[in-house]
Amino acid sequence: MAAQTILFDFTLDKDKTGDEKQRQDVAKILRNELEHIFPQLELAYCMESPENGYFAVLHENKDTVITVRIFQHGLLTLNVEYFLPEGKEPVLSFETMRTMELILRQKFDSDRSKYLPPIKRGGYIDNYMTSTDERIIEYDIDKVVYEARSPFQKIQIMHSKTLGNMLLLDELQNIAESDLIYTETLMCRGAENYEGKEICILGGGDGALLYELLKENPKHVVMLEIDELVMQACNKYLSVICGDVLEKRKTDQYEIIVGDCVDYLKKFIAEGRKFDYVFGDLTDIPITDTPEGETWDFIRTIFEHSFQVLKPDGKYLTHGNGSTCTVGLRLFEEQLELLRPKVKFTTTKAFVPSFMEEWLFYQVTFA
Amino acid sequence: MAAQTILFDFTLDKDKTGDEKQRQDVAKILRNELEHIFPQLELAYCMESPENGYFAVLHENKDTVITVRIFQHGLLTLNVEYFLPEGKEPVLSFETMRTMELILRQKFDSDRSKYLPPIKRGGYIDNYMTSTDERIIEYDIDKVVYEARSPFQKIQIMHSKTLGNMLLLDELQNIAESDLIYTETLMCRGAENYEGKEICILGGGDGALLYELLKENPKHVVMLEIDELVMQACNKYLSVICGDVLEKRKTDQYEIIVGDCVDYLKKFIAEGRKFDYVFGDLTDIPITDTPEGETWDFIRTIFEHSFQVLKPDGKYLTHGNGSTCTVGLRLFEEQLELLRPKVKFTTTKAFVPSFMEEWLFYQVTFA
Repeated sequence: MAAQTILFDFTLDKDKTGDEKQRQDVAKILRNELEHIFPQLELAYCMESPENGYFAVLHENKDTVITVRIFQHGLLTLNVEYFLPEGKEPVLSFETMRTMELILRQKFDSDRSKYLPPIKRGGYIDNYMTSTDERIIEYDIDKVVYEARSPFQKIQIMHSKTLGNMLLLDELQNIAESDLIYTETLMCRGAENYEGKEICILGGGDGALLYELLKENPKHVVMLEIDELVMQACNKYLSVICGDVLEKRKTDQYEIIVGDCVDYLKKFIAEGRKFDYVFGDLTDIPITDTPEGETWDFIRTIFEHSFQVLKPDGKYLTHGNGSTCTVGLRLFEEQLELLRPKVKFTTTKAFVPSFMEEWLFYQVTFA
Repeated sequence: MAAQTILFDFTLDKDKTGDEKQRQDVAKILRNELEHIFPQLELAYCMESPENGYFAVLHENKDTVITVRIFQHGLLTLNVEYFLPEGKEPVLSFETMRTMELILRQKFDSDRSKYLPPIKRGGYIDNYMTSTDERIIEYDIDKVVYEARSPFQKIQIMHSKTLGNMLLLDELQNIAESDLIYTETLMCRGAENYEGKEICILGGGDGALLYELLKENPKHVVMLEIDELVMQACNKYLSVICGDVLEKRKTDQYEIIVGDCVDYLKKFIAEGRKFDYVFGDLTDIPITDTPEGETWDFIRTIFEHSFQVLKPDGKYLTHGNGSTCTVGLRLFEEQLELLRPKVKFTTTKAFVPSFMEEWLFYQVTFA
């Protein structure tokens, strides 16, 4: 079940849209052309104002509804909306949309026009995601592979035709089979030497980081993940990126502890246990303009405890956020600057396929 | 200058949208809530039908126009549209949109809702591109760096905040500063050994392939590019990916010939000149369902001539299309299968950042 909304727009000569009479003429041209595509087209309503131009509702059998606006600044918007039952053919084929754009552009003598592929609304699978800087990205998800609610979050594994299986937590994209680059950039593969090192991962329930780290012969990795169900889902559906590391909870090389990482960090601090590397693979930096609220408190708590379990020459490695999210990233850096003993940081970035955007990563050491 | 269109939708209980009375009740709830955000809201028009449900036009001063549909299948769509003059604040902030969605969702007792970031229409920079499988991808272009029309095509260099400078030919994305992976996958870096080899590039005007090939110490590369202006633009604005190879037209290592590659291929055939590698870095495979028309004729011509200048153990390497574009790719492969002497091929693929999709590449050898 879904409705389809198709948006066209045309830039017109201002001298052709400046007064009511001119806008009526444009509207007439439009109706004439639309009647070729929608033979039973009716004009249901129209409205005019000197400041806001022309608006009209047209429809075919009250089924396909078309709204038109002609702004006096020289812009015409045309919205076509109809309900598309499962398995039925769309009212407008891509061929028809393209032709419609070209013909109208010519009739309007317009030098700029645009139409967007139909926007699918109300479908069971939601393919529209938003980048950190509020851009629309349409995915090619064709199947819900797994869906469950743990005590901590909503967990979904979706299948994308080109990105493979994707893990979504509370409807936010986390990692996909396509995202080795994410893990490699987080761990600075090639630039860091993990051989013989002691490592602690905070979070990391998808298993990808643990899987890649183990390939580099560390002495031992301990992973602190709160959500058992995430690990079960990833073990089953994301083995391309996590191999079989989530199968066992303890080997000579690693241990996965299911629990609250802050509790365990406190325990490590009490024991005096130290690591060469601590990975913050937990929740994202929030996109807010003040460093307040639960998530920021959590980030600060993680920082404070993490640096207490780090060896003097140890490194704290973590993901940041979309590289365009400058406000959130700046706040994150300010939190780092407040830490005592002082720390310093470098950053790396990578375009992450399943995020469809460039992501920033941090490498923090004692100053 | 741009209009903004914001699309919300809510999945409702079918038992609440089945008849006219029920839909009127839902519409009333909606109007009550919208009045908090738009205090001067007026109902301008409404229309009902048993088959197609409820439709209404609301507006505030004929400026912000809101259309609503309540489909009897249990879906409500809400479209908000207004004109946003340069430099003015949007009518709805992201905060308001989020709140509006959450409140309405609760009032409707809806278990699924969605809104898309505002769709910008009629702006000078067009940030909406369409993937090969007709998905909407919104880019973060903030500047037109260069624009010109050559005898062959429209050439644009756009600046994206995260992808860097991008080359668009006839409004199609070609390559960006972010796309080293494109060139590396096309040339199968690591898998092919170019040292001491003779290479011919058909097209390749952006210079990226030539630049990367020269790093691998080939004996000689000849590049046949028809469009002088593309090379000038890339030399100036894409030096991140092409270095300074487009500065000079001839060195000991390479020669760039400005002209029709078919003419030069014919000349090479007449001379008996042969290459270890020929790269097809020309136009994309068309997305059509029959292998007809000018572009397909061109593809066949290129194939026929290219294999005549290839050494017996030579390779023809070329880009294909978006990996979801199965029909176009299949037609392309059928053209390969028609070639005599027979050829065989392998494929590689990579997610290309500036395409925001996975791309397929071909490696063709004599069978």
